[in-house]
Amino acid sequence: MTKPKNAFYAQSGGVTAVINASACGVIETARQHQDVIGKVYAGRNGIIGALTEDLIDTSSEPASAIAALRHTPSGAFGSCRYKLKGLEQSRAEYERLIEVFKAHDIGYFFYNGGGDSADTCLKVSQLAETLGYPIQAIHVPKTVDNDLPITDCCPGFGSVAKYVALSTLEASFDVASMCKTSTKVFVLEVMGRHAGWIAAAGGLASTEQNELPLVILFPEIEFDQQKFLARVDALVKQHGYCSVVVSEGVKTPDGKFIAESGLRDAFGHAQLGGAAPVIANIVKDGLGYKYHWAVADYLQRAARHAASATDVEQAYALGRAAVELAIKGENAVMPVIVRETDSPYTWSIGQAPLSEVANVEKKMPRDFIADDGFGITDKCRTYLQPLIAGEDYPPYKDGLPQYVRLKNESVPRKIKGEFKL
Amino acid sequence: MTKPKNAFYAQSGGVTAVINASACGVIETARQHQDVIGKVYAGRNGIIGALTEDLIDTSSEPASAIAALRHTPSGAFGSCRYKLKGLEQSRAEYERLIEVFKAHDIGYFFYNGGGDSADTCLKVSQLAETLGYPIQAIHVPKTVDNDLPITDCCPGFGSVAKYVALSTLEASFDVASMCKTSTKVFVLEVMGRHAGWIAAAGGLASTEQNELPLVILFPEIEFDQQKFLARVDALVKQHGYCSVVVSEGVKTPDGKFIAESGLRDAFGHAQLGGAAPVIANIVKDGLGYKYHWAVADYLQRAARHAASATDVEQAYALGRAAVELAIKGENAVMPVIVRETDSPYTWSIGQAPLSEVANVEKKMPRDFIADDGFGITDKCRTYLQPLIAGEDYPPYKDGLPQYVRLKNESVPRKIKGEFKL
Repeated sequence: MTKPKNAFYAQSGGVTAVINASACGVIETARQHQDVIGKVYAGRNGIIGALTEDLIDTSSEPASAIAALRHTPSGAFGSCRYKLKGLEQSRAEYERLIEVFKAHDIGYFFYNGGGDSADTCLKVSQLAETLGYPIQAIHVPKTVDNDLPITDCCPGFGSVAKYVALSTLEASFDVASMCKTSTKVFVLEVMGRHAGWIAAAGGLASTEQNELPLVILFPEIEFDQQKFLARVDALVKQHGYCSVVVSEGVKTPDGKFIAESGLRDAFGHAQLGGAAPVIANIVKDGLGYKYHWAVADYLQRAARHAASATDVEQAYALGRAAVELAIKGENAVMPVIVRETDSPYTWSIGQAPLSEVANVEKKMPRDFIADDGFGITDKCRTYLQPLIAGEDYPPYKDGLPQYVRLKNESVPRKIKGEFKL
Repeated sequence: MTKPKNAFYAQSGGVTAVINASACGVIETARQHQDVIGKVYAGRNGIIGALTEDLIDTSSEPASAIAALRHTPSGAFGSCRYKLKGLEQSRAEYERLIEVFKAHDIGYFFYNGGGDSADTCLKVSQLAETLGYPIQAIHVPKTVDNDLPITDCCPGFGSVAKYVALSTLEASFDVASMCKTSTKVFVLEVMGRHAGWIAAAGGLASTEQNELPLVILFPEIEFDQQKFLARVDALVKQHGYCSVVVSEGVKTPDGKFIAESGLRDAFGHAQLGGAAPVIANIVKDGLGYKYHWAVADYLQRAARHAASATDVEQAYALGRAAVELAIKGENAVMPVIVRETDSPYTWSIGQAPLSEVANVEKKMPRDFIADDGFGITDKCRTYLQPLIAGEDYPPYKDGLPQYVRLKNESVPRKIKGEFKL
C-alpha cells in the first residue's frame, strides 16, 4: 500500500466568523480518513505559506484545539490578499507551488475563499495537465459578500447578516426611546462594496409583528439625495425616528463611492471610508434632525459571538464535503449549498465545477429590492430568513468567548533558497 | 384602610441594554405589594411624560410583557434628555409635577437615570418641604458612563464593557489573520466623553493566556501623537498588527476633542463624531500602515444580545430594591451596588443618600491606567472583570432576539389645558 498523499489547506481573502468552522470540517474529516489523506498542512497566511514553504503542521494540534476552531472567528492559520494570475503571467509561482507540493508530498489542495480564490483553485486543479503535477484541487466557499454563483449562499454571509439584522434591531429600539428630545436618525454602515446582500439583512430587523422605520441604501441603487431625504423625513414624521442601513458601496450619480464624496482632513486629503458620516451629514444639512452613526467594519464579520447556527453548520459541512469529494477522486470542484425548501428550511450539499464558479459574480436580483429602492421584498426576506436562523454560542470564560489560538508549528523546510513573492 | 398611593416611574437620559431590567424590577416588585403601592404609571418619554400629563398605565401590561422587559434593551416607555433646574429657576415645572402627581394620586417617584437625574430626583424628594407635597423619591441608578459615586458600578456599564471587550477580542483576531498582506491597525471608537471606563473595558480582551497587542486611548490622558505612533509602530513590528480602542472623549493638548480636530466636509463644515477615523488617519500618515476603523456608537449600549449577566441581575435588583426602600418609608435615597469580594465576586445592595450622589462624578482612578497611559492596570482588571461576567441571552425567534414592545396605553388625562415645556 502506498503512503497516502498529504493535503494543503489555505484560507484566502477577508476572514469571517465561520471560516475556521470550514477548516475544522476539513481537518476533522481528513483525520477520519488517514488511509487516503496523510497530514493536513495549512498555509501560513494563505497561499503565501505555500509559495514561501511556510507550512503549518495541523497534525500537532490536539483534537480539542481543532474542535474549537468551529467556534473561533478569523483565520486561524492567517489569510492573505494575494491573487495568482493566469499560468502565463504567473508561471514561476505555479512552478514554485509544484516544487513545494512535491517536497511535502501534497496531493490535495483545499482552498477556502471567494471568487478570486476559486479562480486560483481552478488553475491549481489544472496543474496535472498544464505542468504535469498530479493534484486534486477542491474549493471551499467562503465570503461575507455572498456573491459566489451556484451555491445558495456563502459561509460567512449568514453570520454577518445576523449581526447586521440584530444590530439594526437593537439600535432602532434605542433611537425609538430617544427620539422625543434627541436622536431621530440612526445610520449604520455595513460592508458590501459591490452588492447589497449585507445591507439587505438590515431589513430583517423589521417584521410584521414588529415593524421598524428603516431605509436601506444598496450599492445596486444610485443614490438619489432628494428622494432619500424625502423618505427619511416621512418616516421621522410618522414614527418619530428612523434607522438607515447604508452599504459602504453606495455610489453617487457620478459613479463615485459616497464614502469618498465629501470628507477631507485638515490638510485636504480625502478621508476614505465612512459612508455613514456622509449620510448622517446629508440628513443633518437637509432635514436638521439630530443623528448618530455607527460603522460596524470588522466587528460584523468577526462577530462569532452572535453567529448564525445555520451558517456555522454549513461552513463545517462544506469543509467536510470538500474532503469527501477529494476522497471520491474529484478535482476542480466546489461543494455548494443546495436549498431544498424555504419553510421549513432544508438544504443539502451539492457540487459545482470550478469552471462555472471562477470569476462569476452573483448579483442581488432586482426583485429582492423594493420598488422604491429603500427596502427588501418578501422574496428577499424568504431567501435571507433561514440564513440567520439559530444561535451557536461559543463557550465563555470570565465573561468572554474562549476562542482558540493554535500552536501553528511549522513543518520543517525542505527546499533551499528563498522564493521572492 | 386608605387606598395605596400610585407610583411614577421614568427613564432618563441615554438608554442602555438593561435599563428595562430595572423597570422590570420596579414594576414586578410593586405588583407584589399592591397593599402599599397602587398602580405604576410610567412617564412617556421620561419626565416629559409627567410634565405633559402623558402617563402610561403599566398595569394594563400582562405579567409576561413586564417579564420580557428584563431581556429587552432601550427604554420601553421612552426616555428624554431634559434637565430640570433648581427650584428657583424651574418653579413652574415643579409645581406642574405636583399638579400631575396630585391628579393621579402619586406618592412614589422612581427615577431611573444618571447624575443629572439624581439631582432632579433629590429635588422631587424635597417637594414635601419646599412645596408641601408629600412624596417619596427614589433614584434607580443607570448609566453606561459608570460615573455615579458610592455605587460600585452602574447598571448599563457592565454590558457595554462586555460588548467592547468582546468586540476588541473578535476584531483583533480578524486583524491578526489579515496583517501579513493587508490591515495592520484596527481602530475601534467607543463611548465615554468624560471618562475612560468604557475604553478601559477593551483592555479585558487581552489576558495572560491570550495576550493581544492593544493600545487604549483614554480621555483622562492627553493625546500625544508621537508617543502614540511610537507605541503602535512597536506593537506592529513585534506582533504584526495592533488594535486601538479610542474613547470618543480623547482630547488633543489644546483641549479639543480629537473627533473635532480635523475632518471637514466638502463645504468646510466640521464633521462631528469620529475619533476613530481621525486616529486611523494619523496612523496612515505617520506610519503608512493599512488600517480599518469602526465606530460602535449605539450598538454598544443597545447590545442586549451580548449583555453581562451580572449587569442584568444588578439592574433588576436595583429596581426591586428601589421599591423595597419606598415601602420601608425611605426618601431621597438611591440603592447601590456594594462589592463584597472580588474573587469570587460577591455583591449586595446598599443605599446612599441622594444628597451625596447628585452632581458628583466618579472619575476613573489614575492607578487604573497603566503608567504609559495606553493600557489598564491589574487593579483596573480586578475591578472590571466581574462586571462583564456571565451571559444572559434573550430568547430568539427566526434568528433574532424577541424584544418586547409594550402596549403603552395612556392613563386618561385629568387636567385641562396644556403645559408648555
